[in-house]
Amino acid sequence: MNLHGISGHHEPNSEPPIPTGSSSPKLKISPKLNRWSRGRALRSGVKLDRPIPRSDNSPRRQVTEAQPTDEADKKTTAIDVEVTAGKSIYLVSDGTGWTAEHSVNAALGQFEDFSLNRGSSVNTHLFSWVEDEERLIEIIKQAAKEGAMCFYTLANPSMAKSAKQACDQLGVLSVDILGPIIEGIASHLGVSPSGLTRGAPGRVKTLNDAYFKRIEAIEFTIKQDDGTLPENLSKADIVLVGVSRTGKTPLSTYIAQKGYKVANVPFVMGVEPPRTLFQVEPRKVFGLKIQLVVLQAIRRTRVKTLGVDTEAENNYSGIDLVRKELDFASRIYERNPGWAVIDVTNKAIEETAAVILRLYHDGRDTSTTVPRISKRY
Amino acid sequence: MNLHGISGHHEPNSEPPIPTGSSSPKLKISPKLNRWSRGRALRSGVKLDRPIPRSDNSPRRQVTEAQPTDEADKKTTAIDVEVTAGKSIYLVSDGTGWTAEHSVNAALGQFEDFSLNRGSSVNTHLFSWVEDEERLIEIIKQAAKEGAMCFYTLANPSMAKSAKQACDQLGVLSVDILGPIIEGIASHLGVSPSGLTRGAPGRVKTLNDAYFKRIEAIEFTIKQDDGTLPENLSKADIVLVGVSRTGKTPLSTYIAQKGYKVANVPFVMGVEPPRTLFQVEPRKVFGLKIQLVVLQAIRRTRVKTLGVDTEAENNYSGIDLVRKELDFASRIYERNPGWAVIDVTNKAIEETAAVILRLYHDGRDTSTTVPRISKRY
Repeated sequence: MNLHGISGHHEPNSEPPIPTGSSSPKLKISPKLNRWSRGRALRSGVKLDRPIPRSDNSPRRQVTEAQPTDEADKKTTAIDVEVTAGKSIYLVSDGTGWTAEHSVNAALGQFEDFSLNRGSSVNTHLFSWVEDEERLIEIIKQAAKEGAMCFYTLANPSMAKSAKQACDQLGVLSVDILGPIIEGIASHLGVSPSGLTRGAPGRVKTLNDAYFKRIEAIEFTIKQDDGTLPENLSKADIVLVGVSRTGKTPLSTYIAQKGYKVANVPFVMGVEPPRTLFQVEPRKVFGLKIQLVVLQAIRRTRVKTLGVDTEAENNYSGIDLVRKELDFASRIYERNPGWAVIDVTNKAIEETAAVILRLYHDGRDTSTTVPRISKRY
Repeated sequence: MNLHGISGHHEPNSEPPIPTGSSSPKLKISPKLNRWSRGRALRSGVKLDRPIPRSDNSPRRQVTEAQPTDEADKKTTAIDVEVTAGKSIYLVSDGTGWTAEHSVNAALGQFEDFSLNRGSSVNTHLFSWVEDEERLIEIIKQAAKEGAMCFYTLANPSMAKSAKQACDQLGVLSVDILGPIIEGIASHLGVSPSGLTRGAPGRVKTLNDAYFKRIEAIEFTIKQDDGTLPENLSKADIVLVGVSRTGKTPLSTYIAQKGYKVANVPFVMGVEPPRTLFQVEPRKVFGLKIQLVVLQAIRRTRVKTLGVDTEAENNYSGIDLVRKELDFASRIYERNPGWAVIDVTNKAIEETAAVILRLYHDGRDTSTTVPRISKRY
């Protein structure tokens, strides 16, 4: 098992490894180490369009691998060419692969300029339910051919070991995402992990209370969408309010996936919200606000999608009317100071959800001065 | 920046570090190294109810830390006591924290027996939007007090470095989740990460095509829930069919979050499904099936939740009627061999979704023999 999550890197707390001329068997992965040193240098802020000199000082040896040293060096030098062709990232999992997808997505957020500045793209390829070694090796070989790097989340330790070995042998840069996290928890709890994939027969099944609670939350949320059934508002864990196109519906369904019953009530100019809204515990109500020009832009996009005529468009996305509607909402917020008001301008659904859930849980947990969302497993 | 994701572990590819009697400054983290060795031993399958002998051979030194060596050793010996009190896991993020939550949840799946066998629980505490160092240190101090371990996802490299240092100093076992993934991608792409948190002013904003596509998908999915608007079935990316309580609604909203328009059509015994369903491209239609007894159990739970009377209960969850309804669905599946039929028995929503999306993308990508879900960024 690769304890560190990163294959092909050997001295965590020392300087980047510089391969020397020694005949150690480790040398055969020198191209990858060079790439890795590049990665470290890059992370620390050095902008590199050309390979760092270290690459050129590294020993070159012909080895019988998918990516021999010389070829790998050429690859490094020809990075601009590669970039134009797009870079591939392989995600390999013996389960759903959502952990790998989620983590790599988050990390890709750190490289948003990449495709903008280089006119190129990053392609991820998710391989789920990879439960036998033969298929695993087939995928890694394919990664080597494509010049892809490989992230893996493999619950079975022997599969994870095979993945690391195959990637090392084939010169595929690899990162074990799940391994270090499992190691950490094992160490902390003082128990061994099961090593079983989610679908394995020995695993505890998912039809527990949390499962039913979550399904109930999702169904509740869909039924309450867009102000339907105001008489049920008191049953919601969280109530979202705001004018049209502040993202109430997608936000509601996202939060519902986490097991909360969410209702949302649209604010339409001149129409009083249902009385039951003001009977809901104020700490459960979240008002969404958004910058005028951004809301107008979103509404224009909406109008295009719907293919509505001009007069209706003006009513919906005309700047004066949008302003009036936002003012209408603001006045309701002012009259209800117990409600949290959240600016959703340019926020992703996940971000607004995180803010709401933190506020929702805030004050319940008195054991710490820093707000947190606590869960029991 | 901790390159390896795991703080307090020093020799990735060698044997577990055994602290010797030398007076190296590294010695002050020996308690953590001991816990770490335990973790490795445990991961490799050794069941330990008592601390491994190595702990007792380790040198003891009084150091002025939150968890001095002696206390840490006591902790290790008294693991059964701690377990009863519940174990805390801190998740610290300068963004939403969903990456940490998702990854740690996935890893916790490897310890499902823990609470069952030990009668104890694991508590996770998510701290999101931790964007200044002072707050970060405050949280880590709190972790040290609670005897918690700490996972962090910090986009800002200097924050990540501070987290590692503080955890090391305070004897908090820590794992950097995002760091190794970002390192890997930086190395692979040959560009530096931005180091900017999601909310930072320099970050590219989220109101792009993918954002609108996703919102549209969610709204479509909600409108099409439970067989409404059968005339729109042709506009769906994915159509789910199945009898009541096979999880169509939660599955639809989950898949919609990933940007697919999903419609679902319930199969009710004796009622012909809408004709438009059979005009949908068969590769887009997914039939859900489930084991008879499991479906009956789920329906009984449902009946309890709804508080329905006995006769209605018998109609809905009586074993004969459930069997007939499943047979009815099976016959429709048989008549439509182009539909994929998926057994959802004991599957989590995420798992069924992964199966469906893999099948949905299968055959589109001819560059590999192994089915994959490809995405462009």
